[in-house]
Amino acid sequence: AVHERVDAAVEERDDWARRRRKGIPTDERLLVVACMDERIPVEAALGLELGDAQVYRNAGGKVTDDVIRSAALTTNFFETEEIIVVNHTDCGMMSAPDDAVVEGLEAQAGGSLDDVELDPSLPELDIGDASIAEWVRMTDDIDEACAAQVAYLEDHELIPDDVTVTGYVYEVESGELRRPGERVAAQVNERVEE
Amino acid sequence: AVHERVDAAVEERDDWARRRRKGIPTDERLLVVACMDERIPVEAALGLELGDAQVYRNAGGKVTDDVIRSAALTTNFFETEEIIVVNHTDCGMMSAPDDAVVEGLEAQAGGSLDDVELDPSLPELDIGDASIAEWVRMTDDIDEACAAQVAYLEDHELIPDDVTVTGYVYEVESGELRRPGERVAAQVNERVEE
Amino acid sequence: AVHERVDAAVEERDDWARRRRKGIPTDERLLVVACMDERIPVEAALGLELGDAQVYRNAGGKVTDDVIRSAALTTNFFETEEIIVVNHTDCGMMSAPDDAVVEGLEAQAGGSLDDVELDPSLPELDIGDASIAEWVRMTDDIDEACAAQVAYLEDHELIPDDVTVTGYVYEVESGELRRPGERVAAQVNERVEE
Amino acid sequence: AVHERVDAAVEERDDWARRRRKGIPTDERLLVVACMDERIPVEAALGLELGDAQVYRNAGGKVTDDVIRSAALTTNFFETEEIIVVNHTDCGMMSAPDDAVVEGLEAQAGGSLDDVELDPSLPELDIGDASIAEWVRMTDDIDEACAAQVAYLEDHELIPDDVTVTGYVYEVESGELRRPGERVAAQVNERVEE
Amino acid sequence: AVHERVDAAVEERDDWARRRRKGIPTDERLLVVACMDERIPVEAALGLELGDAQVYRNAGGKVTDDVIRSAALTTNFFETEEIIVVNHTDCGMMSAPDDAVVEGLEAQAGGSLDDVELDPSLPELDIGDASIAEWVRMTDDIDEACAAQVAYLEDHELIPDDVTVTGYVYEVESGELRRPGERVAAQVNERVEE
Amino acid sequence: AVHERVDAAVEERDDWARRRRKGIPTDERLLVVACMDERIPVEAALGLELGDAQVYRNAGGKVTDDVIRSAALTTNFFETEEIIVVNHTDCGMMSAPDDAVVEGLEAQAGGSLDDVELDPSLPELDIGDASIAEWVRMTDDIDEACAAQVAYLEDHELIPDDVTVTGYVYEVESGELRRPGERVAAQVNERVEE
Amino acid sequence: AVHERVDAAVEERDDWARRRRKGIPTDERLLVVACMDERIPVEAALGLELGDAQVYRNAGGKVTDDVIRSAALTTNFFETEEIIVVNHTDCGMMSAPDDAVVEGLEAQAGGSLDDVELDPSLPELDIGDASIAEWVRMTDDIDEACAAQVAYLEDHELIPDDVTVTGYVYEVESGELRRPGERVAAQVNERVEE
Amino acid sequence: AVHERVDAAVEERDDWARRRRKGIPTDERLLVVACMDERIPVEAALGLELGDAQVYRNAGGKVTDDVIRSAALTTNFFETEEIIVVNHTDCGMMSAPDDAVVEGLEAQAGGSLDDVELDPSLPELDIGDASIAEWVRMTDDIDEACAAQVAYLEDHELIPDDVTVTGYVYEVESGELRRPGERVAAQVNERVEE
Repeated sequence: AVHERVDAAVEERDDWARRRRKGIPTDERLLVVACMDERIPVEAALGLELGDAQVYRNAGGKVTDDVIRSAALTTNFFETEEIIVVNHTDCGMMSAPDDAVVEGLEAQAGGSLDDVELDPSLPELDIGDASIAEWVRMTDDIDEACAAQVAYLEDHELIPDDVTVTGYVYEVESGELRRPGERVAAQVNERVEE
Repeated sequence: AVHERVDAAVEERDDWARRRRKGIPTDERLLVVACMDERIPVEAALGLELGDAQVYRNAGGKVTDDVIRSAALTTNFFETEEIIVVNHTDCGMMSAPDDAVVEGLEAQAGGSLDDVELDPSLPELDIGDASIAEWVRMTDDIDEACAAQVAYLEDHELIPDDVTVTGYVYEVESGELRRPGERVAAQVNERVEE
Repeated sequence: AVHERVDAAVEERDDWARRRRKGIPTDERLLVVACMDERIPVEAALGLELGDAQVYRNAGGKVTDDVIRSAALTTNFFETEEIIVVNHTDCGMMSAPDDAVVEGLEAQAGGSLDDVELDPSLPELDIGDASIAEWVRMTDDIDEACAAQVAYLEDHELIPDDVTVTGYVYEVESGELRRPGERVAAQVNERVEE
Repeated sequence: AVHERVDAAVEERDDWARRRRKGIPTDERLLVVACMDERIPVEAALGLELGDAQVYRNAGGKVTDDVIRSAALTTNFFETEEIIVVNHTDCGMMSAPDDAVVEGLEAQAGGSLDDVELDPSLPELDIGDASIAEWVRMTDDIDEACAAQVAYLEDHELIPDDVTVTGYVYEVESGELRRPGERVAAQVNERVEE
Repeated sequence: AVHERVDAAVEERDDWARRRRKGIPTDERLLVVACMDERIPVEAALGLELGDAQVYRNAGGKVTDDVIRSAALTTNFFETEEIIVVNHTDCGMMSAPDDAVVEGLEAQAGGSLDDVELDPSLPELDIGDASIAEWVRMTDDIDEACAAQVAYLEDHELIPDDVTVTGYVYEVESGELRRPGERVAAQVNERVEE
Repeated sequence: AVHERVDAAVEERDDWARRRRKGIPTDERLLVVACMDERIPVEAALGLELGDAQVYRNAGGKVTDDVIRSAALTTNFFETEEIIVVNHTDCGMMSAPDDAVVEGLEAQAGGSLDDVELDPSLPELDIGDASIAEWVRMTDDIDEACAAQVAYLEDHELIPDDVTVTGYVYEVESGELRRPGERVAAQVNERVEE
Repeated sequence: AVHERVDAAVEERDDWARRRRKGIPTDERLLVVACMDERIPVEAALGLELGDAQVYRNAGGKVTDDVIRSAALTTNFFETEEIIVVNHTDCGMMSAPDDAVVEGLEAQAGGSLDDVELDPSLPELDIGDASIAEWVRMTDDIDEACAAQVAYLEDHELIPDDVTVTGYVYEVESGELRRPGERVAAQVNERVEE
Repeated sequence: AVHERVDAAVEERDDWARRRRKGIPTDERLLVVACMDERIPVEAALGLELGDAQVYRNAGGKVTDDVIRSAALTTNFFETEEIIVVNHTDCGMMSAPDDAVVEGLEAQAGGSLDDVELDPSLPELDIGDASIAEWVRMTDDIDEACAAQVAYLEDHELIPDDVTVTGYVYEVESGELRRPGERVAAQVNERVEE
């Protein structure tokens, strides 16, 4: 009977709409941590469909306390078993020196950054003796940075040990992913050595 | 001549691949702050193409210090002039009580959370007297939460005053956006009052 | 030989064109009773193709004597074995109070509605002591109304007992069907209680 | 700014979802009255899109008190200005004699039809001295029937005089509409007379 | 090796281009005899692809000496085993009386038709005592005409006995084929008799 | 109003279905005379749509008395103003010698062809002293044959003088049309002479 | 896990980008030698996809020392096992006499061609007593030329004996390939001889 | 009339099929000189359609005497006005040292290469004192090689001075073209220097 088919569709919609309340995990049990850059087609690059994975994105795709919070929640409560980090070439975090960034922020704040509230909904949050430049997290080398974020996540106490962590660099110049350190574009322009 | 057409294409690719170094902003000068939930088609919901906007996503689409860092960088250095916040119904941040979350994290950490490093690449970061529950940022009402995130961003010192901030709630049950508080689904089931 | 293929197609067309005379039932042996609202894609919502089902539609998707007539004919003479009722949110039958409707009709009739012929091709039809408001059948709550229509059909003498009757509410705000009373949109905006 | 575009889309959805409450008419200000037969692609045959027209459908596409109720509501309260009646060839209302239909219904009711409640939600409804066969409304000639339904609607008190009413016969054997009485298929098989 | 694939394609082209010289029959071993009317999609109506069938077409789809010549050649020399005749409604051969046609031709010839050469490349061809009207072959009833053409072909000495001959009438008003005499459109407009 | 749009469609269908009775000519006022070969996509080769042209086809695309009959009817009564003849390479009319064809037909007829009725519906038709081979019309050279058919049609008394006649050879080996005598394939294989 | 799928894609890209360094042959182990004419869709004509074959193209598709160099490299070092030669009709190498070509080149060089450096990056290259006309390699007959190029490649010392060599002529007038000498277009215009 | 349209199509085909004999140049008056590598989609990379350009391809995309011959013919006789050179990364000409290549060829020839005929259809061709390694033309740096080929063509006596010559490197790792020396992939991985 037709109503059986319709009932199944109604049920499927309910599963989608109340997925979190019903305790249904993402389809791939995956969290992606990526840069917020506008040129990164995160889902297409990793072959993901809607529903497959949660996607954390911030400036630089760096592991911050917010990444730890988000990753801890999904791995401990939503059955997520895998994390993939995606950094990328020509990242904005490489496009200026530390000094220039700090000066620019001070200009905006109209003075020293010491008194600026870093987290407006958690004013108690403080970076102690660390410098604002450390908090901003500019990057020197994108492949090294990618490997470092993987290590931070693998080692953290709030993330279960059996969570797999992998990192890739997305090349905006080619639209392709590479493993950190494997810069194929640099290897194909000159004569092979004997 | 054909080479003029090819040269234009070569130049266009260079603009894309070195956009940040060349100081080219996103096409819509827009930053989106959204939840990392796997059911939110951020780009489709807002009508965005690759290149249009940077997309920050974390657990809950909440304004954290990482959001402030990312938003401060793009509004001060990359010519971003607009921020859109996207929260959503059936958010995982509403699917458990505070106590249950704290207990779960303690179980993972194997004890008290006091000694856990919240930010592995910035160990100086500290939340002082705030509770871990505050840091986790569970949500009571999604429409109120959305409005609050907009206010945090509008008021912050590191974000220029002329940046526009708007918030929407994405309904996973309908695949539609609403303005915070405008729950149309609640208004269409009963008799209109005289 | 080709003519065998052509003959089969000629026969198939004859079956379609003289289906009722030949006693061929609908493909799904289904009658749908739905509201006549312009926003209800009845066939698409139920996954029906041309030929699958007869579709009764009136103002409100209410069970009237015309519904009984139509349903009695198809279940007794055309082998229909299933009825699905589809009501919907924001129905026009909920958009005004009884008094306003009666007044509007009286204005059109230019006086009392007592002498108006309710059925121009069956002038004997009469509603006795019932009020015009009852005949108009405005609705207070769409989910309750849907359940009531299902009950009317299940219990009627002219409809065979083994006919299955099911009801759904189509949400114009989401483009989705729900079972009466299962308002998922109302359940996903606030914190889950412990 | 992008939020202006999104706001417009949010508003458009609200107009769709609360169309009736907001007093927005159908896009073509049209009511279609058609047979419930499964072979009639009403929207395609008339070139209508979702939102264009309300569609009343019953057994035979006959003007009953339910049609009058539905048409009176939409022409008086929803700004509908046009009615199109669609009857069709091989209608089930032509596939049996009156006696056979009455006998079949009596068999189902287990006796005389005199005590059967014709309208379960309006038990006061009564057809007085009219016979059940009249209530069932079988059809002798589809073109004449179509013209008659148009006349019933044009003349009814509850339907404003300036509402346009037009009728067509849908040919299931050709998938085409004709005007009542214009049976082109009957005119093209023999020699033209001098 | 690639050249084997290319060689096969070269061979296939040769089979197509020299099909008749190589003695390869049509793919369906079929000859269609149809009217030359511009509204008859012969191939689509019979479900034929290029290469499937030879298609003879003349004014009226009538069996003339040219049809016999063409059919005799293909059934005796090209392995054709089936003939399908396609006549159609609203044929031009029914659109005028005999007298009008003869008069029109005489007007064109500028006098009597007796001396007109009927076949410019075979001047010896003569119709003896037959009238020009007989040669023109106007039609009184398209279904009878279709059946007659089938009989002419079935009975002819130059066409092998085991050739199958079938006839259809193509309805320009419905875009459908019917078997001669089976006018479904005439049977679906009125009440079924008891 | 919607019924105006529907009325226009109803009218358009009537024009199509009763085109000949209403005296509406083909859209291009064109008659094509082509071979019945299964490899000739007549409409595609000439860029014709359904409704554009009448298409006469027989064995060889030769001008017979049936062609004259058909062409006289359409040019004198249906406003046709142009005739295009399409012959083709590898025609079956070139694939055997005269003797072989006559012998084959005699074998089928079981004796001399003298007593065979050439036209079953016009038994008076006679070819006098002409031989059966002349009636069969085998072809020696396709380009010359094409030019000859054009001349026959241009010169015939029953075809108005202002009718344009053009001929083409369709190459089955290339899928292209050529003008008679312009065999481009023969001209591109060797060195251009000085 | 998703990263396994991504790793496979990363590896596949590396295989493509460093195919030659990794010693991966073309997908079909094929070298095509063809004319550089703008009308030859080499890949489409042979059914080749990107990656399938190396394609050598020069004026005329003639076997020069550069062809030998290129073919020797790919057959000895890149595992190529098959060579296909594609010449074509209306080749520019047939469109002028030897004298005209030599005169034209002398005009460009501003005098005798004796002192012109034939190879700017290998000035030692010399054609000895051969004439410039021989170096230019004009063509008399395209089918003979094609067969000759096949022979040159089959017999050359630097090309392994087990390499298969095949030749085709591409007909620009038909868009089809033929084997050298098999000019089907020349065989289908006249009567088959007994 | 339809035959005018058909005549135009016949003429257009003749222009295509006899383009060279009629002295019609390529659509873009362009010669491309590219490597024969199977991974280079020459037409797609340059945005070329069939008919736009002649495409010379050899091992390495190097300027040899065959390139000079081909380029001299097209620029002096076929109105070509532009040359584009396309080299590419991971070229086979960079995948082995000179010694390895010479040894491999000697192994194939079964001894010294001194007596090998370099050009089988022009046995007089000789490279004098140049080494076989020079004739093979291996490459050290692809960007430098590309610039050199452009210079060779710009300076050659047999190529008119007003011919434009441009060079690009196609990156097989990104599917993009670059100008020689502009290796964007090498510039986007590290911190911008102050």
